[in-house]
Amino acid sequence: MKILLIGYGTMNKITARLAEEEGHEIVGIIAGSGKDAPYPAFDTIDAAEADVAIDFSHPDLLLPLLEDEVKTPLVIATTGQKEEIVSLLKEKSESLPVFFSANMSYGVHVVNTLLKKALTMLDEFDLEMVERHHNKKVDAPSGTLVKLLDTALDHRENSYPVYDRSNIHEKRKKEEIGISAIRGGSIVGTHDVIFAKDDEVIEITHQAQSKEIFANGALKAANVLVNRPNGFYDYNNLFEER
Amino acid sequence: MKILLIGYGTMNKITARLAEEEGHEIVGIIAGSGKDAPYPAFDTIDAAEADVAIDFSHPDLLLPLLEDEVKTPLVIATTGQKEEIVSLLKEKSESLPVFFSANMSYGVHVVNTLLKKALTMLDEFDLEMVERHHNKKVDAPSGTLVKLLDTALDHRENSYPVYDRSNIHEKRKKEEIGISAIRGGSIVGTHDVIFAKDDEVIEITHQAQSKEIFANGALKAANVLVNRPNGFYDYNNLFEER
Amino acid sequence: MKILLIGYGTMNKITARLAEEEGHEIVGIIAGSGKDAPYPAFDTIDAAEADVAIDFSHPDLLLPLLEDEVKTPLVIATTGQKEEIVSLLKEKSESLPVFFSANMSYGVHVVNTLLKKALTMLDEFDLEMVERHHNKKVDAPSGTLVKLLDTALDHRENSYPVYDRSNIHEKRKKEEIGISAIRGGSIVGTHDVIFAKDDEVIEITHQAQSKEIFANGALKAANVLVNRPNGFYDYNNLFEER
Amino acid sequence: MKILLIGYGTMNKITARLAEEEGHEIVGIIAGSGKDAPYPAFDTIDAAEADVAIDFSHPDLLLPLLEDEVKTPLVIATTGQKEEIVSLLKEKSESLPVFFSANMSYGVHVVNTLLKKALTMLDEFDLEMVERHHNKKVDAPSGTLVKLLDTALDHRENSYPVYDRSNIHEKRKKEEIGISAIRGGSIVGTHDVIFAKDDEVIEITHQAQSKEIFANGALKAANVLVNRPNGFYDYNNLFEER
Repeated sequence: MKILLIGYGTMNKITARLAEEEGHEIVGIIAGSGKDAPYPAFDTIDAAEADVAIDFSHPDLLLPLLEDEVKTPLVIATTGQKEEIVSLLKEKSESLPVFFSANMSYGVHVVNTLLKKALTMLDEFDLEMVERHHNKKVDAPSGTLVKLLDTALDHRENSYPVYDRSNIHEKRKKEEIGISAIRGGSIVGTHDVIFAKDDEVIEITHQAQSKEIFANGALKAANVLVNRPNGFYDYNNLFEER
Repeated sequence: MKILLIGYGTMNKITARLAEEEGHEIVGIIAGSGKDAPYPAFDTIDAAEADVAIDFSHPDLLLPLLEDEVKTPLVIATTGQKEEIVSLLKEKSESLPVFFSANMSYGVHVVNTLLKKALTMLDEFDLEMVERHHNKKVDAPSGTLVKLLDTALDHRENSYPVYDRSNIHEKRKKEEIGISAIRGGSIVGTHDVIFAKDDEVIEITHQAQSKEIFANGALKAANVLVNRPNGFYDYNNLFEER
Repeated sequence: MKILLIGYGTMNKITARLAEEEGHEIVGIIAGSGKDAPYPAFDTIDAAEADVAIDFSHPDLLLPLLEDEVKTPLVIATTGQKEEIVSLLKEKSESLPVFFSANMSYGVHVVNTLLKKALTMLDEFDLEMVERHHNKKVDAPSGTLVKLLDTALDHRENSYPVYDRSNIHEKRKKEEIGISAIRGGSIVGTHDVIFAKDDEVIEITHQAQSKEIFANGALKAANVLVNRPNGFYDYNNLFEER
Repeated sequence: MKILLIGYGTMNKITARLAEEEGHEIVGIIAGSGKDAPYPAFDTIDAAEADVAIDFSHPDLLLPLLEDEVKTPLVIATTGQKEEIVSLLKEKSESLPVFFSANMSYGVHVVNTLLKKALTMLDEFDLEMVERHHNKKVDAPSGTLVKLLDTALDHRENSYPVYDRSNIHEKRKKEEIGISAIRGGSIVGTHDVIFAKDDEVIEITHQAQSKEIFANGALKAANVLVNRPNGFYDYNNLFEER
């Protein structure tokens, strides 16, 4: 595939390396000003004439690009301003295939699937979620945890997240979903979903050891996406046969 | 319900206490010789005229009882000699409802269900299982781990358990399922299923905090079982509507 | 020993049961109004003529009792209003032996000791703390976590706790000590201290399986305390020979 | 520093890269036949005229090299045939400074130190050890676990390791130290020391996220070692002032 990179930070560089190792070609980047990359720079997505654009960037870079007409298939991993981005991508998806995931790891998709199954069987269990990331991460909780939380909120009527119990002097309410974010060192990313009831605890955990899992996931998604009809895809429907 | 206890060790005493707290009646026990209990002793299951017999015992006590004719519904939790016991129970189940589970905890059933789902999505991941129990447990691995292992062996063709790697000086083979048993203190029981592939690990864990979860599970199963038609039940089909 | 119980909730009842099993005598309780207990009720500590008073209560009950003169040795486990209680107990300790610990478990004392050692060797590691407790616990973080946090704050100049990162959109600062409190089911209590630096993480964890560890710790401390000279004791100096 | 690499596998290449990033020079390698490296090849250690030799290899390569006279300071991380290698290195250390560690990570040294402290306080607790590594690792348990186990065996008289409980049908004995080795995916290395007694569990865990921690540790040790007097060093005495 001819690949356009949107963004040129750590994740984009890993994607470039793995893509080239697999025989793909990086035909260009869109990276805002001041990025020094060994690839041609573009201002609009279609100008690169790529088979697919793979984005690991941020809303400030991505949103203006989506205001232009786009014909290139899109694999989008930007976190932040999710609602606005998804809404725009769904519009675009009428005329091109779009894959969006706040977390490109296949393993996280599996955990989300297991979580859905667990939610149907563990109605009476209290639910808490914990994530760990490196000390340079600016947002908390992580985009992946927000995705898992959305899954839980969809299944549990009237449930809501609680981010801080240090100023609440009350028993936990059934509807609470406690959210904790741990930051330290260079931890790549751990997500832990905890179901607790009288005398038993069930946990589902995902641990990432390197950022390559996200680049690998994006490349796999791109490989499948370029042969898909126009539409909006995520891990729940990308691999489905039609 | 009128309940007959088979066995009179720790688990049976907890079952008696919880059953009485819920308003059930313990009409007797079968416990081999030398057990001092505040309930009438019986030699055969039907002699107690109970609504249901709940067993937490061992093959030496249970197997001879199953040689007699039995009409009382059975909830059986004995571990060890599983094949022989299941085969006998299936015979019996033609003329009475029988519930058998090597682990009476509902949470363990949920973990087994999640494991099945995970096995269908994680073909390429290495699989390992670890359990922890108290230092008085005689068998290793636990009956529950054997149950989870059976689930995995069913899904992974040619797979086989490996209990000790200290004398193997080779790389792990894809078909191995590593089994570890940790013993210490009064740990009630933890089971951990580990899926590992390049740079990511997914785990499903169950932790029991007290033995009451097993007695509670047996009582819940008994409550449902007494209204079921003759047949062989486990957690996979007990709650299904017909 | 003749033991006076201060408070008559779950912990006091467990203490009574374990004390009687060990051959001690419960000579009375102080429990506020409305508590129905099989022991004589007292209004002041010394009135019970006990060898030792063991407290698992709360500041509202304990503080007024400490306004009276007290001659009975005290084992105090109340959490909340720690500074005020410790200050009062130190005054009292000039004329009687007093043992105070926000967590009566010997294992927690060991974890605190290991934490001190780790803090001297892991200056450059980010530090985070996580605790888990049952869903009926009213305060967060737990008294035990506050104790571990105090140990860390003493060792790390300018450090401070952070209870919620969901509204901070900045990188973690070196001086932060992240604190997370997880609530669910009947979890007795888990405390986890996490040191993270580039590419490695070191954790020290304590897990309690039943509340008996706290009653056992209080009884052990009481046994030693009654033979100690007047003074203020905690786990750091109670077992020291003089 | 001018550095000679002994071995040219993954660890040596990481060491070369990190060393060069820090401004050191790789003056050569000793790697057996068939290794294609961008550095001069040598047959004996002293021939390279390096300031220090850093070894991540195996006994087959290392032992013959130690039969020659050696004057170059040595940092040795080979695992396997530990007794023979240590014995030879101690001889050599009369005329040069030698640093040996089965695990070059500073964090593992910290865990070993915490383990020693815990062993003095937790006499009555059962002790178990678990390690996790990638599926290509040939030996089990890991060299690091053997090091932690040695620490425990030194402190607990009559204790002995147990590698497999699947064929023992007896209660755990107090003197046992259970050892479990988990293998899967590309797990870099996790070591977990578990102390368990009635109703409480204390754990000390080390998790490595990349192999760079071992190369970094070796480089740090080399930096200090070249200024040390002749002698045999490990993490317990390398940083001590004289």
